[in-house]
Amino acid sequence: MATSALRTAAPASPWEPASTRAQQREVKRNAVLQTAAQLFNERGFHATSLDDIAERLNVSKPTLYYYVESKDQILLECVRTALDLMHDGIEAVRAAGGSAIEQLKACMRIYTGVVTQDFGMCVIRIGEDPLPEPLKTELRQLKAGIDRQFRRLIADGVAEGSLVPCDPKMAAFMIAGALSWVGRWYRGDGELTPEEIADQGIELLLNGVLQRRMAARKKAAASTPPTKTPRKKGKA
Amino acid sequence: MATSALRTAAPASPWEPASTRAQQREVKRNAVLQTAAQLFNERGFHATSLDDIAERLNVSKPTLYYYVESKDQILLECVRTALDLMHDGIEAVRAAGGSAIEQLKACMRIYTGVVTQDFGMCVIRIGEDPLPEPLKTELRQLKAGIDRQFRRLIADGVAEGSLVPCDPKMAAFMIAGALSWVGRWYRGDGELTPEEIADQGIELLLNGVLQRRMAARKKAAASTPPTKTPRKKGKA
Repeated sequence: MATSALRTAAPASPWEPASTRAQQREVKRNAVLQTAAQLFNERGFHATSLDDIAERLNVSKPTLYYYVESKDQILLECVRTALDLMHDGIEAVRAAGGSAIEQLKACMRIYTGVVTQDFGMCVIRIGEDPLPEPLKTELRQLKAGIDRQFRRLIADGVAEGSLVPCDPKMAAFMIAGALSWVGRWYRGDGELTPEEIADQGIELLLNGVLQRRMAARKKAAASTPPTKTPRKKGKA
Repeated sequence: MATSALRTAAPASPWEPASTRAQQREVKRNAVLQTAAQLFNERGFHATSLDDIAERLNVSKPTLYYYVESKDQILLECVRTALDLMHDGIEAVRAAGGSAIEQLKACMRIYTGVVTQDFGMCVIRIGEDPLPEPLKTELRQLKAGIDRQFRRLIADGVAEGSLVPCDPKMAAFMIAGALSWVGRWYRGDGELTPEEIADQGIELLLNGVLQRRMAARKKAAASTPPTKTPRKKGKA
């Protein structure tokens, strides 16, 4: 966009070139969506009015209507933008190839990155529930597509031997669930950056929290077939 | 005396004893709350009216008011009941003692059990957000108390050596987050029972999904000193 704006060697007109105007409109439209997402996330969808959004942007409600049609449409676009970001990110990871485990980690990173942004938080905190059909179904299908990608990556990881045999559906629910929850508790002014949260989340979810050496010790000590859950001697 | 004996030989009153009436009222009140929770979970809080609740119970709205004051009060009670269930369950586990890892598993089981029930689902799907202060803060404090218990158990698990050194706050967020998410996707008519989901969740979250032998193999290949992670024979 910037390039094409430069290319039009502008005559001295009091109007900006059409491309610039379109660009400015897009910038303003995004500001409306972003501010709306922030308010939805802070107060909830139903508790946020178009007046609230206009007020925070220092514009009148009629001005808002130049950029968006309704609150429903705003929510739709916020959620769709975030889901598209996830989807495109995951597609890019898939297309780049590599081992399933590395792809899974990259996708977990993308997922965390999105749910810690305004639009992504909107997916988690508000979601498609308040929207009428067929919008609700449209967004659910986008979500289901992302879920399928996680399941496929986990199944591929099991097939390549990097992941333990498990039910990919359940594992995807647990992994994406834990990362989705980040969108509930994340605060922009918190201690950790989204990248640090992603790193710790990947570590915790892939490696688990169990201390392995105990399991190994227990296995060595016990003559029974090895179990995965180590037991500690009661301290009581 | 004969007179008093006759008197106790109950005359046929058309009214139930007060205790029975109180009990029946409680049963009906619970039915109102349960039905409301189901509707909130299906349609969302704002999209559910007291008329909807009355309709599903085949009663009039004035009848509802005999049992509850308002929609806000219903949500408060649904969420509070579920959080109390979690809290009491966790307290009982803590009181019974035993190793931190076993207590953690028991608490994960309780948590999953609650979020797969109508009231617990309400905590996850609706939460305290729609409620005014000070109710919102009251419920947030209950939630924070449960979160603290998970953090403490994880810290205890690290201290007793059953869990890997980790940030208990982040680990609690990931574990409780993954299990909270169950309340989003769980369906009563789904393939798995809440108990099976808890079993798989505990397995996946505590052990992680990573196949250990790969890590071990990689480390061995990198000629680093042997690690504590147990190795399995490769199948690849």
